[in-house]
Amino acid sequence: MSAAIRVALDAMGGDHAPGEIVLGAVQAAREYGFGVYLVGPEDRIQAELARHNTQGLDLPIVHTDEFIPMDEHNPAKAARNKNTSMVRALQLVKDGEALGAVSAGNSGAMMAAASLMTLKRLKGVERAALGGILPTKDSACMVIDMGANTDCKPEYLQQFALMGSIYMERIMHLKSPRVGLLANGEEEGKGNQQVQEAHQLLKANASTLGVNFIGNVEGRDIFAGTVDVVVCDGFVGNVVLKVSEGLSEVLLGLIKAEMTKSLPNKLAALVLQSDLRNMGKRLDYAEYGGLPLLGVNGVAIISHGRSNAKAIKNALRVARQTAETGVAQAIAEGLAKLSAGEETTASI
Amino acid sequence: MSAAIRVALDAMGGDHAPGEIVLGAVQAAREYGFGVYLVGPEDRIQAELARHNTQGLDLPIVHTDEFIPMDEHNPAKAARNKNTSMVRALQLVKDGEALGAVSAGNSGAMMAAASLMTLKRLKGVERAALGGILPTKDSACMVIDMGANTDCKPEYLQQFALMGSIYMERIMHLKSPRVGLLANGEEEGKGNQQVQEAHQLLKANASTLGVNFIGNVEGRDIFAGTVDVVVCDGFVGNVVLKVSEGLSEVLLGLIKAEMTKSLPNKLAALVLQSDLRNMGKRLDYAEYGGLPLLGVNGVAIISHGRSNAKAIKNALRVARQTAETGVAQAIAEGLAKLSAGEETTASI
Repeated sequence: MSAAIRVALDAMGGDHAPGEIVLGAVQAAREYGFGVYLVGPEDRIQAELARHNTQGLDLPIVHTDEFIPMDEHNPAKAARNKNTSMVRALQLVKDGEALGAVSAGNSGAMMAAASLMTLKRLKGVERAALGGILPTKDSACMVIDMGANTDCKPEYLQQFALMGSIYMERIMHLKSPRVGLLANGEEEGKGNQQVQEAHQLLKANASTLGVNFIGNVEGRDIFAGTVDVVVCDGFVGNVVLKVSEGLSEVLLGLIKAEMTKSLPNKLAALVLQSDLRNMGKRLDYAEYGGLPLLGVNGVAIISHGRSNAKAIKNALRVARQTAETGVAQAIAEGLAKLSAGEETTASI
Repeated sequence: MSAAIRVALDAMGGDHAPGEIVLGAVQAAREYGFGVYLVGPEDRIQAELARHNTQGLDLPIVHTDEFIPMDEHNPAKAARNKNTSMVRALQLVKDGEALGAVSAGNSGAMMAAASLMTLKRLKGVERAALGGILPTKDSACMVIDMGANTDCKPEYLQQFALMGSIYMERIMHLKSPRVGLLANGEEEGKGNQQVQEAHQLLKANASTLGVNFIGNVEGRDIFAGTVDVVVCDGFVGNVVLKVSEGLSEVLLGLIKAEMTKSLPNKLAALVLQSDLRNMGKRLDYAEYGGLPLLGVNGVAIISHGRSNAKAIKNALRVARQTAETGVAQAIAEGLAKLSAGEETTASI
C-alpha cells in the first residue's frame, strides 16, 4: 500500500486520547480501507491497538516522545517543538508522506504549527482560517473564520470567502455555493467598518475569484439554509459557534426536562425518543468530524477536543477527501487569478 | 390622575399598528392602573379605542398628523420630524409630561430620535446602547449593546457594563449582577483588540463604577445562567440576537416536524403540547416587552416590530418601572464617580 494514501493522526490529541483516537483510526481503516499513521509514544499507541482486531489494517506507528497538553498555555511556543505528536503529524504531510493531518489536540497549537511551522500558508494567502460547519434546516453551512484570527482586515475576509466557497463546492458537493458576508442587516450599507469595506471588495472581485457572492446575510440566515458560506472574522465566528452550542444545549435540556416531568409525558417521550435521537444526530459535531484549516499548503483538520472515535473516523475521511479534491491548490489558483487581475489593472 | 404617571406610546409604530398597539395600552391601563398617552392620528386611534371597553381608563390621545413608516430608509432624517407619533411620544418624556416612551416602530429612528433629538445622552455618556434581554436556563441575561453602535471604542464598552448592571439590578431585581465581557475565551488575554482594552479598563474601574465584573465570558455563557450582563459592541450583539432567533426557530421547527411525522408521534405530541407551549413562552420576546435604550436622559423602550398587544402591555410596564426605579439617574451618578476618580488621579 502506498504511503501517499495514508492520513497522519495525532494519537495524543483530545480529551479522550489516546483511547478514542486510536479506535477512530481503527474504524476508519476498516470502514474506508485507507492507511493511518498513528503519531505519538509507541508504547501507549501499541497498548491501545492491542485492544482491537487490527488484522489487515494499515496502521503504522510513528514514534514521538512528547505531545502537547490540551491546556497548553503557550500554544505558539509548543507548536515549535518538532518532537510532539501534533507537529510530527503535520510534518508527515509537509514531507509528502501523508495526505493530511488530523488532531483533536490544542487547537491554537495546531493552527500555529500548521500555518507557521510546517505546511505554512499558500502563496498569496494573508491568514489561514478555520472553517466551521454548522447544521442547517436541511443541510450544512460553513462559517469562516471560526476562530483562527480575532482581528481581521477586509482583505482577509475576501480570502475567507474564496476558501469557504471552494471547500463547500468540493467537499459538500455544492454547485456554486452561496457566499454571504455576516452583518447586522442585509442592506449593502450595513455592518461595521471592516464588513462594509469587505463588502466593496467582494462586490468588485467575486466574479474574478469565481465566488457566488450574495451580499450581506444576518445571523439568522446561518441556520435557515439560505446561504452556504458565511464570512466573518474569527472573533465573531467564535461567538456564533459558542452561542449556537450553548443555546442548543439549553433548548434540548428544557425539552428533556419537560418530557420527564410526569408519567404521561414520560410515556409520550418514549414514543418520540428515537426520532429525537435522529434530530440530535444532525446537530452532532461528530458527524462532521473536524474543521479544516484553510489557506495552508496541505491538509490540516482540527477536531473538537471532546472528539470520540466516530468524530475521529469522520475527520480522517474528511482529511483524505480534502486532499484528493485539491482544495488547497484550488485556493491558490483562485488567489492567483485575483492578483493577476490586479496587476493588469495596475498596468493600464 | 397626575400626568406624571402616564407613559407615552407611539400608537403607529409596529407591524400591527395601530390595532395591537392600542389594545396593548388598553390592557396595560386596565391591568396596571396607570395612564397611557396614545400618540398618533386621532381618528385612527379613536377608531381602535371604540372597539374596546375603555371606561374608567386613562388613555388620552395626543394627535400628530404623521408617523414614521417601518421601512423608512433614512431613519436619522425621519427622527428630525417633530410631527411624527414617535418623536412626539419622546418629546412628552423630555417635557416631563410622561414617565417614558414606548415604540415598536423603526428602531433606527427611535434610537436617533431619543439619543440625538429629544432626550439626548446623559452627561458623561459616549453612546446610548440597546439592552437586549435573552432567556437563560432559569432566568434572563442582558446583552448590551444589542445593535445601536456597530463600531465601539473600549470606553463605550465600559459604559455599557455600568448601564446593563444598573438595569438588571433595578428592573430584574438582581443583587450585584455578574457582568462579563464577551470574548472568544475566558482567559484575560482573549478577545480582539477592542475587547482586550475594554477588559483592562473594567479591571481598573469596576469597583469605582460599582460593577461586579467577572471577566471574559463566552457565547455559551449567555444561556447558561452564569452571567447576568454580557457586554459587546452592537455588531456582535446583533449577531448574537439573530443567531439565537434563527437557531431557536429551526430547532423548534424540527421538533414540531418530528412530532407530526407518524400517528404514534402525533399522539405523543398531544400529551406534550401544553408543556412545550410553556417552554415556548420562556423564549417569547413578548414576555420582556421591549428593549431599553440606556444612556439617554429619560426612558425609551424599543419594542419588537412584530409586537402584539401583550408585548406592548409589558413594554409599558417596563417603561414605568425603569422610570420609577431611577435607572437613568443611577447611570449618570455611576459615570460621575468614574470621572471624579479620574480627576483625582490626574491631580496627584
